[in-house]
Amino acid sequence: MITQKINRISIIGAGNVAFQLAVWLHSKGFMIDSVWNRTYSKALELAKLVDAQAIMHLTGISEKSDLYLLCIKDDALPGVIKDMSGLRIKSNIIAHTSGSTPITIFDQYFNNYGSLYPLQTFTKGKWMDATEIPFFITSISENTTEKLGMLAQSLTKKCFVISDQQRLMIHLAAVFACNFSNHMFCLAQKLLADNQIRFEILHPLLKETLQKAIEHNPCEVQTGPAERNDQKTIEKHLELLSENEELQNIYSTLSKSILKSR
Amino acid sequence: MITQKINRISIIGAGNVAFQLAVWLHSKGFMIDSVWNRTYSKALELAKLVDAQAIMHLTGISEKSDLYLLCIKDDALPGVIKDMSGLRIKSNIIAHTSGSTPITIFDQYFNNYGSLYPLQTFTKGKWMDATEIPFFITSISENTTEKLGMLAQSLTKKCFVISDQQRLMIHLAAVFACNFSNHMFCLAQKLLADNQIRFEILHPLLKETLQKAIEHNPCEVQTGPAERNDQKTIEKHLELLSENEELQNIYSTLSKSILKSR
Repeated sequence: MITQKINRISIIGAGNVAFQLAVWLHSKGFMIDSVWNRTYSKALELAKLVDAQAIMHLTGISEKSDLYLLCIKDDALPGVIKDMSGLRIKSNIIAHTSGSTPITIFDQYFNNYGSLYPLQTFTKGKWMDATEIPFFITSISENTTEKLGMLAQSLTKKCFVISDQQRLMIHLAAVFACNFSNHMFCLAQKLLADNQIRFEILHPLLKETLQKAIEHNPCEVQTGPAERNDQKTIEKHLELLSENEELQNIYSTLSKSILKSR
Repeated sequence: MITQKINRISIIGAGNVAFQLAVWLHSKGFMIDSVWNRTYSKALELAKLVDAQAIMHLTGISEKSDLYLLCIKDDALPGVIKDMSGLRIKSNIIAHTSGSTPITIFDQYFNNYGSLYPLQTFTKGKWMDATEIPFFITSISENTTEKLGMLAQSLTKKCFVISDQQRLMIHLAAVFACNFSNHMFCLAQKLLADNQIRFEILHPLLKETLQKAIEHNPCEVQTGPAERNDQKTIEKHLELLSENEELQNIYSTLSKSILKSR
């Protein structure tokens, strides 16, 4: 059997992920049928950009799309999926872009479903190059996996088929590597600001730290007082943070963890 | 009075900082007199590179250097400084490159002293461009500050005069922004490896996260479950980490801190 390619897509959501995905897909020749968003004006804004029709209610969505792509917040998924289960699109593909939602969320409502998860942080108005961004596919059937795979491969060189469990772990790892490391930058920025020093002085060090972690295994290029087990400096730092119990706690927790990782 | 420029330098230490600083200074026309290191063979290796004389004992150090630059570990400083206090170099400048040691460590032994602190992580054999690397100067007198400043400005565009307290805070901030964020990368790498996924898939996200933190204030571009106060995802992640108390503790500690920073 020759798998029929996905040609027509409806986008549910009009946030940063929806905008970027719709623009990529449109630029690669996919036809965007409908765009729905809880706030109609945002649906309209995105629809205009990709020659699609903005719809006010989900009941107005095109029934001719090969794929319905849900780019909405995790907690909005159950309601929207239930609302869409009443539409005559049972044999089409429905997929979400959520890192932490199993595809079983579609189980009782749809037949052909999956997930298309691009691992990147998107900023409104900042169009990115898709070719290096990893896309992860999880789906209910080989046929659906193949169709989503062909779509993803038209955007990126890096397309992987994974399980729900693996996607969960990737999302969790991304929280550590990106959300938590950014918070470390934020805490550093505040420490410096309290001492009349600009965060910019750290830029070269930040760039080189990431460069090393990318060129090597990050665990192997760990540096700093905890890695050297330099208790004298660790104590000095904890003393400097004596008026900030929260930072002190973070400092000891992470230092202990680094020490344990050696 | 016209300040006399530093022309001749002796390097104490032959680690990554010593190598990079000596090579930079030599390339800018400074004369490197002596290189001393606890392990003579390393002193010899560096001395060859910068046309200097490797010395076996500190007593053999050239007395004609305008600057004695101590690029050694924090805990080796007191001993070496004491040993050097017996040399006939009282009127010359002595400076360390330590982020967390106050310059008062020289107090009872020397007259003209300070610190020259380059804020970067150095790797053996990887020569870096000095021009964008911030150099921080702390010193006992205006005259010494001026001399160290002239030297630093021959290497970098970014030279700042700071206090001991500010240098301590910069070093502490660097531990958060670089050592701790690298540990986050390391933990993410381990989580992925446990699930048969390569760390490389995070590279584009890591680069974009740093890019955003550099273009904006990192606190303002924080993302993730904690930033959204998405308790459902946070609980899901803590459950995924249920067999790893250490990671669970780090996850909740940092999520609470992000939540508090909002």
